[in-house]
Amino acid sequence: MAVTEPRVFTDPAQLREALKDRGVVGFVPTMGYLHDGHATLMRWARQSCDTVVLSIYVNPLQFGPNEDYASYPRDLERDVKVAASAGVDYVFAPTDGIMYPPGFSTRVSVQGVADTLDGLSRPGHFTGVATVVLKLLNLVRPDKVFLGEKDWQQVAVLRRMITDLNVTVEVVGVPTVRSEDGASRGLALSSRNSYLNDEQKARATVLSRALRAVQDAYAGGERSTAALRQAGLTVLNAEPQVNLDYLTIVDSNLQEHATVTDDPFNRILIAARLFGVRLIDNMPLSAVGPA
Amino acid sequence: MAVTEPRVFTDPAQLREALKDRGVVGFVPTMGYLHDGHATLMRWARQSCDTVVLSIYVNPLQFGPNEDYASYPRDLERDVKVAASAGVDYVFAPTDGIMYPPGFSTRVSVQGVADTLDGLSRPGHFTGVATVVLKLLNLVRPDKVFLGEKDWQQVAVLRRMITDLNVTVEVVGVPTVRSEDGASRGLALSSRNSYLNDEQKARATVLSRALRAVQDAYAGGERSTAALRQAGLTVLNAEPQVNLDYLTIVDSNLQEHATVTDDPFNRILIAARLFGVRLIDNMPLSAVGPA
Repeated sequence: MAVTEPRVFTDPAQLREALKDRGVVGFVPTMGYLHDGHATLMRWARQSCDTVVLSIYVNPLQFGPNEDYASYPRDLERDVKVAASAGVDYVFAPTDGIMYPPGFSTRVSVQGVADTLDGLSRPGHFTGVATVVLKLLNLVRPDKVFLGEKDWQQVAVLRRMITDLNVTVEVVGVPTVRSEDGASRGLALSSRNSYLNDEQKARATVLSRALRAVQDAYAGGERSTAALRQAGLTVLNAEPQVNLDYLTIVDSNLQEHATVTDDPFNRILIAARLFGVRLIDNMPLSAVGPA
Repeated sequence: MAVTEPRVFTDPAQLREALKDRGVVGFVPTMGYLHDGHATLMRWARQSCDTVVLSIYVNPLQFGPNEDYASYPRDLERDVKVAASAGVDYVFAPTDGIMYPPGFSTRVSVQGVADTLDGLSRPGHFTGVATVVLKLLNLVRPDKVFLGEKDWQQVAVLRRMITDLNVTVEVVGVPTVRSEDGASRGLALSSRNSYLNDEQKARATVLSRALRAVQDAYAGGERSTAALRQAGLTVLNAEPQVNLDYLTIVDSNLQEHATVTDDPFNRILIAARLFGVRLIDNMPLSAVGPA
């Protein structure tokens, strides 16, 4: 089936003009280099909205000085084709000059949920994310925003920001999409996977296998956070390439406790560097909880 | 003439329901204890908007630990009468529980224009202002927001925040209203003037007299910032009660230079403590510039 390519806007005023009287607007903010995880976000938006807007913007504000901003993969032409297949109506791909013109000096910061985990490893990261997403929400003014749960802490930070600042938008968290390919089966899809070759991807499945091991220990009745964590660490220790940042079991406020409850929102979060690439993943502690 | 009292809302959802299809909405955010300066803001809004919303909220986030949050004057009943006389349609008077429910942890901060002058004397003040005003703008969603130029730096900070975060609202700066009473003639109206008795108010006119002296020196051809400043200091030195925080001559970005240009947006700003009360004032450097 032929698909119509979405219109691509750089100018937010033109985008907004196009969005007038277009019903319920769904918005998927991304940094591009789209994979099936992004496509799932777009399809969810397509199913529940009249109009779907995708933004593609590699946001310099959320990268640290020693991070991969310059090398972050970019391919707008291919991204527009992926967006077309997923039924996106409009692509918003602003320039740095539009997002951060000279004199720009405002920051949106979230305390608490943004101060832990990736907030510790990547100082300023979530301030950069919160700032750009608030700008994008103000530019696009969607009714719903679709966020991938692969970035669990990011979703928590953005929900907090949206609630605290009285932004009128419904946040829809969308479950992580995982590779179904033989050797890399289970690896959470990420644009950063493009840094890895096939063998490295296969070995990177150690992260999701560690998460599953924690789930299994929980399913087997274990409630001590230290023991649950150990179940994951045992898997991780078998892969010498893992440079672990954190493996933690947290409640819905991203707080760790010595003993876990049966709250279905308890979550196992992991971040590690493998082959020089920082990867993150997460799963519900209870395999029957929200995916 | 009998005036209709405006409806007072605590619940933002009810306010927004009332604002549906009410045309161009003008918004005047205040901390209440309304004076003629506020009434001027409301009348400006009344003249150019279909619907006028006034908010009254003493925002704890913008007060420092040693400031006058607890003693800040409050009188909602009287305020509603003032609002009625000025033609306000709706008053939004939220509670702390509505503005800052448990878990609230987001801050909007502006660098640059917020880091100087009052930003130095009152750490965190402008972050508190920017955060509450963004929340109010998101709750009320006005087309225009009316801000008093008595708080010149505050207007600069909020303009910056609104531009940087792509908030769609027109900022209207409204000139300062001054006392026309005999002895206190020239004193900028402020809710904090209520802390002063008549004699103290008369003596507090030293601030506006100092600003006029700088204007006169500029009109006489002086272009050295130090010499212009000295003209103001000479006036201030005659009043032993003045505990000066700053007297400065700045450009539209609130930057001081050794020599002033003839830019009509150059401004003289003053802050001082008199009789235990911190007062601020400002005037254009050129008396023929924007009032």
